[in-house]
Amino acid sequence: MTTPSSKALVPFVSVDHMMQLVHHIGLPAMLRGLADYIEDDFRRWADFDKTPRIASHSADGVIELMPTSDSESYGFKYVNGHPKNMKNGLQTVTAFGLLADMDTGYPVLLTEMTLLTALRTAATSALVARYLAPKNATTMAMIGNGAQSEFQSLAMQAICGITHVRLYDIDPAATAKVVRNLTGTGLHVTACTTPEQAIEGAQILTTCTADKQQATILTDNMVGAGVHINAIGGDCPGKTELAAAILHRSDIFVEYPPQTRIEGEIQQLAADHPVTEIWQVITGAATGRRDARQITLFDSVGFATEDFSALRYIRDQIQGSAFFQPLDLLADPDDPRDLYGMLTRAAN
Amino acid sequence: MTTPSSKALVPFVSVDHMMQLVHHIGLPAMLRGLADYIEDDFRRWADFDKTPRIASHSADGVIELMPTSDSESYGFKYVNGHPKNMKNGLQTVTAFGLLADMDTGYPVLLTEMTLLTALRTAATSALVARYLAPKNATTMAMIGNGAQSEFQSLAMQAICGITHVRLYDIDPAATAKVVRNLTGTGLHVTACTTPEQAIEGAQILTTCTADKQQATILTDNMVGAGVHINAIGGDCPGKTELAAAILHRSDIFVEYPPQTRIEGEIQQLAADHPVTEIWQVITGAATGRRDARQITLFDSVGFATEDFSALRYIRDQIQGSAFFQPLDLLADPDDPRDLYGMLTRAAN
Repeated sequence: MTTPSSKALVPFVSVDHMMQLVHHIGLPAMLRGLADYIEDDFRRWADFDKTPRIASHSADGVIELMPTSDSESYGFKYVNGHPKNMKNGLQTVTAFGLLADMDTGYPVLLTEMTLLTALRTAATSALVARYLAPKNATTMAMIGNGAQSEFQSLAMQAICGITHVRLYDIDPAATAKVVRNLTGTGLHVTACTTPEQAIEGAQILTTCTADKQQATILTDNMVGAGVHINAIGGDCPGKTELAAAILHRSDIFVEYPPQTRIEGEIQQLAADHPVTEIWQVITGAATGRRDARQITLFDSVGFATEDFSALRYIRDQIQGSAFFQPLDLLADPDDPRDLYGMLTRAAN
Repeated sequence: MTTPSSKALVPFVSVDHMMQLVHHIGLPAMLRGLADYIEDDFRRWADFDKTPRIASHSADGVIELMPTSDSESYGFKYVNGHPKNMKNGLQTVTAFGLLADMDTGYPVLLTEMTLLTALRTAATSALVARYLAPKNATTMAMIGNGAQSEFQSLAMQAICGITHVRLYDIDPAATAKVVRNLTGTGLHVTACTTPEQAIEGAQILTTCTADKQQATILTDNMVGAGVHINAIGGDCPGKTELAAAILHRSDIFVEYPPQTRIEGEIQQLAADHPVTEIWQVITGAATGRRDARQITLFDSVGFATEDFSALRYIRDQIQGSAFFQPLDLLADPDDPRDLYGMLTRAAN
């Protein structure tokens, strides 16, 4: 056994460490903290080197790399999306990510991101809803009660102050799970048996279903005036959740148009259909909600800067903590040109 | 502490484990094994989803992601190139990589790739030289005596049967390091004080220098007829090693033209300058060396399939061995939709 030098060691946050960190910080505080970091990075949008994620599609799913960088740091996430996994007892989405120093190229953080993606997705949805949802929104309809739904509900509570969640899923067992999980959180939770029932009285409509296909989770006649739609399940080519007619009645807000036009609900629309970039709303360069009867739609597919923000947040939170382990990921010979010498010396 | 299930655990090969594995297999045998896997994957070139690597450039270096996949597996490598790192006691190139199952998107291997990249690069160079170098080549000139040079020398010995290496570097200390490291390997090693001296009598000319700039390591008048040039240092935009006149006298072989035209020596040439893809030579679809006086040039920049081959090799070698540790990288709740429940139960 050769003892690696500190330069060779990369802090690694396992799933277990991430769960400990969430409980140490507290979930609502962590969702708010993540939203702050995400907001900060949207505010300095021009600083980032941006590219649509790089996807590898197979019959049953997709594997994606989502890189971005500013002048100081580089981040990327590996994430898969395999809807059929659930039937085999596997996660639809798993992820991990890395933050590195642009100046040296050396990684400074490797972390699980299955949980962290759920948290940052929820934090992003709630951050955007804080800008776009009707004033004093109290109620969210949550359509699709999978792994993301509790995090969406709690983020909307922690960041937007909603008090009521109305649940619907084609599988009542999924809804029952969320009802159970949200007990004791302070949210008033209603299990609904139809999507129409779920959206009754809701100012925020969140759709998060997992089928990889063109689906119509919300039809045109279900959506009244004065709501904010948070559409997060339509996130890859050929996968959408909303009737096109809804899109034509909505003002549409997106993260990064070159990616959203490929993956989002707006893949159903003409390539030049007007959209507003959410960073423009956050900086004040564009108007968000103009009036109480407007339908705002956040066509969210998840963008690399949100993962970058989450990686920055975790890096800052674990400083000096016990919530990581050093990983021997990088070769670090005494003389950097002598990689071979390091190898031969390891034989002794 | 929650004990993760086996589905959540990804085999991780640390730098220390990789070094142990190399010594367990033996370096020459490992280089030959890697070359076999690389050759197999070049033979089924059409099976791969290919893309030029995704680069993030900064003033002092580059961070790259190199993904590829076939119908069964997905692989990618993270790799940086920061020439100035060496002055600060850091590696110019560090890397790690991942292999995943296309069917589920679940990672099946995470491994250090700083050492593995050095090995696969050398194995690729020697594999290609076996196809292109003059028959019965005995001598390689190794220009640039950095971290890659011992691996190049030993791969050319193990795979092409060369017996003599002639070394040159602008820094005599680098050359002295290689002389020292190659003692006892069976190679006849000569330290040279000029590049002209290094190439005397050599049938294979390997250039591997690290400056991020247009350099002229080999000038036109240095290169005689009947040699094979293995140019591996010119591997990003603005970084080349050969005088353009040499390129015009050579038959040029490349890995993946869309990437090589951006990064390789041929960035100096017209975008339609004829090149031969090396997989075509390996399958017999194209001719490699036609005659003894021809100059063949392998304009190598390193391609994602070579890393994929290396990842496959390591996955196969570590089965049932002690050369890895299980890493708690993936969240794996009992009910895949109940990520939140897994999190709350971890609090107890």
